[in-house]
Amino acid sequence: MAQLDVETSVNKYPIHILENIRHQFNQYVSKDYSAIFIVTDERVANLYLEDVKESLASHPKVFHTVIPAGEQSKSIEAYYQLQTQAIEYGLDRQSLIIALGGGVVGDLAGFVAATFMRGIDYIQAPTTILAHDSSVGGKVAINHALGKNLIGNFYPPVAVIYDIQTLQSLPAKEIRSGYAEIVKEALIADKELFEDVMQEKLNQVTNASLRDHIFRGIKIKTHFVQEDEKEKGIRAFLNFGHTLGHALESEYGYGTLTHGEAVAIGMLFAMDVSNAVFSNCLPVETLRKWLNLNSYPLVLDEINSEKLLSRMKSDKKVSNNHVQMVLLKEIGNPVLVELNDEDIQKHLENFINKMMKN
Amino acid sequence: MAQLDVETSVNKYPIHILENIRHQFNQYVSKDYSAIFIVTDERVANLYLEDVKESLASHPKVFHTVIPAGEQSKSIEAYYQLQTQAIEYGLDRQSLIIALGGGVVGDLAGFVAATFMRGIDYIQAPTTILAHDSSVGGKVAINHALGKNLIGNFYPPVAVIYDIQTLQSLPAKEIRSGYAEIVKEALIADKELFEDVMQEKLNQVTNASLRDHIFRGIKIKTHFVQEDEKEKGIRAFLNFGHTLGHALESEYGYGTLTHGEAVAIGMLFAMDVSNAVFSNCLPVETLRKWLNLNSYPLVLDEINSEKLLSRMKSDKKVSNNHVQMVLLKEIGNPVLVELNDEDIQKHLENFINKMMKN
Repeated sequence: MAQLDVETSVNKYPIHILENIRHQFNQYVSKDYSAIFIVTDERVANLYLEDVKESLASHPKVFHTVIPAGEQSKSIEAYYQLQTQAIEYGLDRQSLIIALGGGVVGDLAGFVAATFMRGIDYIQAPTTILAHDSSVGGKVAINHALGKNLIGNFYPPVAVIYDIQTLQSLPAKEIRSGYAEIVKEALIADKELFEDVMQEKLNQVTNASLRDHIFRGIKIKTHFVQEDEKEKGIRAFLNFGHTLGHALESEYGYGTLTHGEAVAIGMLFAMDVSNAVFSNCLPVETLRKWLNLNSYPLVLDEINSEKLLSRMKSDKKVSNNHVQMVLLKEIGNPVLVELNDEDIQKHLENFINKMMKN
Repeated sequence: MAQLDVETSVNKYPIHILENIRHQFNQYVSKDYSAIFIVTDERVANLYLEDVKESLASHPKVFHTVIPAGEQSKSIEAYYQLQTQAIEYGLDRQSLIIALGGGVVGDLAGFVAATFMRGIDYIQAPTTILAHDSSVGGKVAINHALGKNLIGNFYPPVAVIYDIQTLQSLPAKEIRSGYAEIVKEALIADKELFEDVMQEKLNQVTNASLRDHIFRGIKIKTHFVQEDEKEKGIRAFLNFGHTLGHALESEYGYGTLTHGEAVAIGMLFAMDVSNAVFSNCLPVETLRKWLNLNSYPLVLDEINSEKLLSRMKSDKKVSNNHVQMVLLKEIGNPVLVELNDEDIQKHLENFINKMMKN
């Protein structure tokens, strides 16, 4: 239960999930690379950079760079600066980039790898729970001032090397953020995983449970990615909870809510809408209680349904100016539904009212 | 003899080569695109933009932008600005970009298409002879301050629409530049084409001959691209003449020599080296005479072999710090040869001496 494989149109790559694997990069990195360039952020550098460099000590050319932690590093300026460093360090087409960190590092360093000399190899080495999701599937991107992830590629890594041990250093907010994506994966594909996670108290989760949940989450992610690499069909189901989630993130400003916290609220909304559209009874209250118990921020302060709708409509997934939402017919049975503005706004208003009361 | 097809790992696209096809874009562009964004440069806009827009008049959303002509438009700033425009015009994943122009427009607009929302469709509509080469094969890129085409993707267009009629408006310098790439294609793959072109006086070339040469050139290009899309093997043969060519372009500053003029000198050098390495007798003098007759600038003023060598070594194709050159065992039989610095420099000095005497 330590390895999964992903098959894409251009390669097949392994996902290694192991405690303390950061000390064994040398076992997974070919000696043939002309140079290795590790990209990481301040927080992760302090904790794990030396371990990784040490494990690669036998390689003659290992460079690194440390970027500021946080979403602002996914800028065109940071992107260009990494390209400059890659050139100055003498990287060529036979070189490797290692993205050591969370989603920001993975997205940015992955997009640099995708476009440096028209594409070189890279390894995703996630150090957050949230990045179990973003590190698999080859979506890499930077932000545009007008929207998140608007500039990027589909470009799979050559491997994902995931040291579960590094998750021990995560603050509670980051654990919440990561678990929201696990809950999402469960809701669209695995009722049992959903029920298991609903039994967990996040500040008491054991390493064994964490590894188990992440493994099952990645397995689901892998399935959707393999079936639909370029997000022309079912991969879109992975956006469950993200329509409102992204809108909340940008409305409140990135950093107020974590990505997962925003998605958590988005999932409650998507379940509410699903119940209304399909007249079914998804366990919204079970999820709401679990989120509350685990200190997810669930209050929508001073939020305006019209503004949210307009945010939702600027998403990449909009088609012909209509919002497309992933809804659930039941747990494990997602569908993509196009909703008109009026209906969305009505649902939003109901939802905001309900949230304010809780 | 108006259409060729290219099969890639991700799609299959047609190359339409026809006189006045710019008036018939509507026949080749699906009505289903949510929006169409034409990118062109000042020179081409004045001549052909209205024709293309007119032919798309029945489409409800057609936008355009005009960039400055010339290599400086392949900058990160111009790239980001096009992304901004694409967002502001409301392009989404179902939209189309048309690159109407020469290699600069094709490379830049193609890279925007490759990375806008992780990749949307685009059409290459070349308007120069040189772009018969760059528009086929999916290489898109912008320049980095430290080197040409260092940031880019392999990203095939959905079609190439090539209006031979637009080549009538090209200045002599551009005709020379384009024909150098046709000669290159001939030398690596088609002796007959080489002999045919050697019979032509470029300022008297007929439309029929031009179409014939371009068609045969693209056919060769297509062959190498299909066999080796990501340039891991034989596609590198298309760089015949480019090792010294690129070095000359950057040494003299882009714009002094056109790309093709630099490649022409590079081919003479590569043939000289081939003759030395393989003790054979390629028709260097035939080519030199033809180049002279057609006013290619063949004098290497104030050039220094050490500087050139260092330029050659900063190329993307360098492997383990050794220059790799495409040489010819005979016409149509290219090989990739790694040369050490000493040998390269010796060849360069001989070549510079010989060029100065002519």
